[in-house]
Amino acid sequence: MPSYTAPTRDAKFILNEVLDVASYGNLPGFQSATPDLINTVVDESGKFAAAVLAPLNQVGDHEGCTRHPDGSVTTPTGFKAAFDQYVEAGWSTLTAPEEFGGQGMPHVLGSVLEEFISSANQSFGMYPGLTQGAVSAILATGSDEQKALFAPRMIANQWLGTMNLTEPQCGTDLGLIRTRAEPQGDGSFAITGTKIFISAGEHDLAENIIHLVLAKTPGAPDSSKGISLFIVPKFLVGDDGSIGERNAVQCGSIEHKMGIHGNSTCVMNYDGAKGWLVGEEMKGLAAMFIMMNAARLGVGIQGLSQAEVAYQNAVAYARDRRQGRALTGPADPAEKADPIIVHPDVRRMLMDAKAFTEGMRALVLWGGLLVDLTHNAPSEEERGQADALLGLLTPVIKGYGTDKGFDTAVNMQQVFGGHGYIHEWGMEQFVRDARIAQIYEGTNGVQAMDLCGRKLASKGGAAIQAFFKMVDDEVAASDGELAPLAEALGKAVGEQKAATMWFMQNAMANPNNLGAGAHHYMHIMGVVCLGLMWLRMAKAAAVRVADGDGDGAFYQAKLTTARYFFERFVPDVGALRRKIETGAEALMALDEDAFLTAA
Amino acid sequence: MPSYTAPTRDAKFILNEVLDVASYGNLPGFQSATPDLINTVVDESGKFAAAVLAPLNQVGDHEGCTRHPDGSVTTPTGFKAAFDQYVEAGWSTLTAPEEFGGQGMPHVLGSVLEEFISSANQSFGMYPGLTQGAVSAILATGSDEQKALFAPRMIANQWLGTMNLTEPQCGTDLGLIRTRAEPQGDGSFAITGTKIFISAGEHDLAENIIHLVLAKTPGAPDSSKGISLFIVPKFLVGDDGSIGERNAVQCGSIEHKMGIHGNSTCVMNYDGAKGWLVGEEMKGLAAMFIMMNAARLGVGIQGLSQAEVAYQNAVAYARDRRQGRALTGPADPAEKADPIIVHPDVRRMLMDAKAFTEGMRALVLWGGLLVDLTHNAPSEEERGQADALLGLLTPVIKGYGTDKGFDTAVNMQQVFGGHGYIHEWGMEQFVRDARIAQIYEGTNGVQAMDLCGRKLASKGGAAIQAFFKMVDDEVAASDGELAPLAEALGKAVGEQKAATMWFMQNAMANPNNLGAGAHHYMHIMGVVCLGLMWLRMAKAAAVRVADGDGDGAFYQAKLTTARYFFERFVPDVGALRRKIETGAEALMALDEDAFLTAA
Repeated sequence: MPSYTAPTRDAKFILNEVLDVASYGNLPGFQSATPDLINTVVDESGKFAAAVLAPLNQVGDHEGCTRHPDGSVTTPTGFKAAFDQYVEAGWSTLTAPEEFGGQGMPHVLGSVLEEFISSANQSFGMYPGLTQGAVSAILATGSDEQKALFAPRMIANQWLGTMNLTEPQCGTDLGLIRTRAEPQGDGSFAITGTKIFISAGEHDLAENIIHLVLAKTPGAPDSSKGISLFIVPKFLVGDDGSIGERNAVQCGSIEHKMGIHGNSTCVMNYDGAKGWLVGEEMKGLAAMFIMMNAARLGVGIQGLSQAEVAYQNAVAYARDRRQGRALTGPADPAEKADPIIVHPDVRRMLMDAKAFTEGMRALVLWGGLLVDLTHNAPSEEERGQADALLGLLTPVIKGYGTDKGFDTAVNMQQVFGGHGYIHEWGMEQFVRDARIAQIYEGTNGVQAMDLCGRKLASKGGAAIQAFFKMVDDEVAASDGELAPLAEALGKAVGEQKAATMWFMQNAMANPNNLGAGAHHYMHIMGVVCLGLMWLRMAKAAAVRVADGDGDGAFYQAKLTTARYFFERFVPDVGALRRKIETGAEALMALDEDAFLTAA
Repeated sequence: MPSYTAPTRDAKFILNEVLDVASYGNLPGFQSATPDLINTVVDESGKFAAAVLAPLNQVGDHEGCTRHPDGSVTTPTGFKAAFDQYVEAGWSTLTAPEEFGGQGMPHVLGSVLEEFISSANQSFGMYPGLTQGAVSAILATGSDEQKALFAPRMIANQWLGTMNLTEPQCGTDLGLIRTRAEPQGDGSFAITGTKIFISAGEHDLAENIIHLVLAKTPGAPDSSKGISLFIVPKFLVGDDGSIGERNAVQCGSIEHKMGIHGNSTCVMNYDGAKGWLVGEEMKGLAAMFIMMNAARLGVGIQGLSQAEVAYQNAVAYARDRRQGRALTGPADPAEKADPIIVHPDVRRMLMDAKAFTEGMRALVLWGGLLVDLTHNAPSEEERGQADALLGLLTPVIKGYGTDKGFDTAVNMQQVFGGHGYIHEWGMEQFVRDARIAQIYEGTNGVQAMDLCGRKLASKGGAAIQAFFKMVDDEVAASDGELAPLAEALGKAVGEQKAATMWFMQNAMANPNNLGAGAHHYMHIMGVVCLGLMWLRMAKAAAVRVADGDGDGAFYQAKLTTARYFFERFVPDVGALRRKIETGAEALMALDEDAFLTAA
């Protein structure tokens, strides 16, 4: 059975020494977030995830969720009890606003918690995880009455939430939605339609489920401009929060999926269910993006989380499993064979994973901090800058993070040889679970287009220029032993600038030139972002090494891994740029029939 | 449900126009292989695979194999009937020697058949597939009596074969084998031990199963030099082939695997089972490599096969599924949305797959032809050259072919968005099935070390130098519209030469420098091999385009895809070389404890 230990030391290093969260103590929410409290939250959340949730991960995979003839759904053995513990320990309220019963802690701490929970049990984490997005949408666009009624109960996870977007004919292109909302004259709407792939659509964890549903009102334009967002509770509720009658929404079936079996992914049938508009009619797409952006950061964390837990288990296996001898001569002559961690190709996979997960953790937590700054930075200008940067990073965290997260899980499975292919070892579950993160909340192709088609161009390219300046400044400020790392990062960002310029010069003439390179560009920016993180981490570590810090091995490993990152990740950037610069011509040249198999 | 059409047109193009198989008509086995016969075999094998085997692929995945309390195993519904059809149609004997009841057709045709079968149903294909390796070992090292008794029946698939190498403590490092073979004084041995991951270890397809088992005789060195190979039949057999009593070998359990559920992967318990030595005592490793090399080519074909079938289904989906609009304006204004094949990022994935599968098919068939030349080239020198080249290509076909095959299957799943994650669509099965090919018959890390540590250095580098000369000659002989492609290939092989030189200069001082770059080198060589294939295919296609051939669209697509290949695959080669040249220092620098998760 696989094991999991929350990487609390690394999280604390990033929070305290790289991001210096304590330096934001003047901002709302950060006052109470002293280093001591930060460390306690990190340690306790790590313990909870490892002790309570990790042991249920394989159970969830094997059992899956069970739909009963009446449409009710039972989660896997142990999930309900673990969920009650989660709620009781107060994890659900950690970063929620105090006004609605939350603890008001910085969002960046929530990102730590999210990683640990998702590493321990990705399927479990999705139940409370999706609720957060639903709460965000209600808080951002709901009426005061809706906020008062739903937010406290959802934040307390007394009720959970869902996001109902996808329909059989409609995924990325929400303009194709067919679900209808008919006004009933009493302020409510009758919602009718079928939604698919609804994570946590039905389950036994909470007393109510609050569905946020996209639908079209009569006469609305037949495009994404005609979409409205509705609250559709599983059980109707009184103004006092009392549970009333069952609404006309049912789980029609549970999808048979490649992974995340512990989460009930449902087909939801709305048959004139009572719903209430959230925000303005036909402004549903904007409200949806509030949920979606929060969810995308969460999905990026899932990429990290599966890479991390897979890495930990691969390390343990590589230290334990003995096959063959080190190329430089027996490392352990008393035994018949050496542990496979002596083999350079095994090391390569482990070092790739270490360089990715630690760099990605820093990026994810930086993203979490930017969420805080978006809300709480002192000036509107600073809030706007944080928002623009976060907008730029979100598709990278989601797209690059989950592509590399999946690749890393696959490589960690590879360390196990044949045993990696066998259920009992748990590695193949990490791969199957990690796979979904590249797909949902907008496929990674959609992320790439969001980055290149929307975020790069937004406000005349202000965000990407600010990002370039930030990287350039970091490079310029790094000397001494950091100089070689800075030089490599400077080269990488130079390639990104060139690719950006190429888009500017060629996308106008033919927008396919942008589309044909967007995925590669997202990966270039992923490497540059991780490079920026590694340079900052190396800087923080170098200070401590110079100080002769007692935890010297930890900091020395940071410096070595930073060097490895720049050696082994950065060369890809040039190759990706050259691919981008080949443009769309050959890529789009074939007639569609030329793809058919000729007999 | 996914569909499959055998790519017969492409196979015939490669066999007839690229490899020009008819030009080998003077060689044994090739006399009867006229273009007409070749085309008939290709067409009929494609029909068989698509009509009989493909419909059972999902059945096999869902049902898996069933072990009964008596240790017997039932294959999935329909497998036995399909297997009987397979045998009756004579597919099992296609390339086997006429002396033992085979049809004596060229091996290269067998490679075509293997691809089609494996695309249609990888799990099914493994039952007869592994038998071929077992037959090769018996024919190469067995006694005349063993050949006469076993080969004809195994070639006819009246009996099937297995390879029993792996044990719980021993995979790559066969020196660790614990299975014992005690001589019984009557020429037989009593075999005792446990083997794991035994594909087709027990089943209901054939009247007998002939296990080829690695074990150690008393007093043999406790290393790979002490291994012997034994024939251990499930049922003992008389000299006339009559079936006798049950031998003391049993399937202890069926492994729970990520994929290839239709194949019975067994734990095999040998409890003093009667076995007979094949070849000389303590020469088992050499005999095993005969099986293994054949199997490795077969596994490379599996990489191609899953990429191909996944690609076909992704093409169909991308033409059918409508989401969003082309970046250049509505492609299909009468509909609410365009088919997703208009989106450049979807095209990118499809073109990557097309460039890989068609290039890989050419490489696989070239490898198949080299197997023929190894046996049947007119002079010993030519046979030796073919053997050396085949030895060099085998780890590339296996390692690069399955790495890219898996990546391709994953990308084709990505084309489906959320539907790709759902069982019923079949795409996630292709991914799960493709995954094993990177692991078994020597992990791809082992392939990389076989290539770089053994094959590059063999005979003073004669094989790799011959390969470089072949590529250089092809580049030099390409002009006109082929010049840009040739230039790109020349650049790629230049990078490979530089990487080879770097190994020569740095591996002696520290062999870890070789190990740290081996995997990257294998991928460089994969791209160069596919580049060579694409240049040859482009050359053949250009001739036909110039001729104004009636099938012009097919040939024009070859030229376009060749261009795409050189644009989009070759840039990686430079990045991989740069990674190699960073060496082993940072990669090996960390103390093993530095990989542990710090709390």
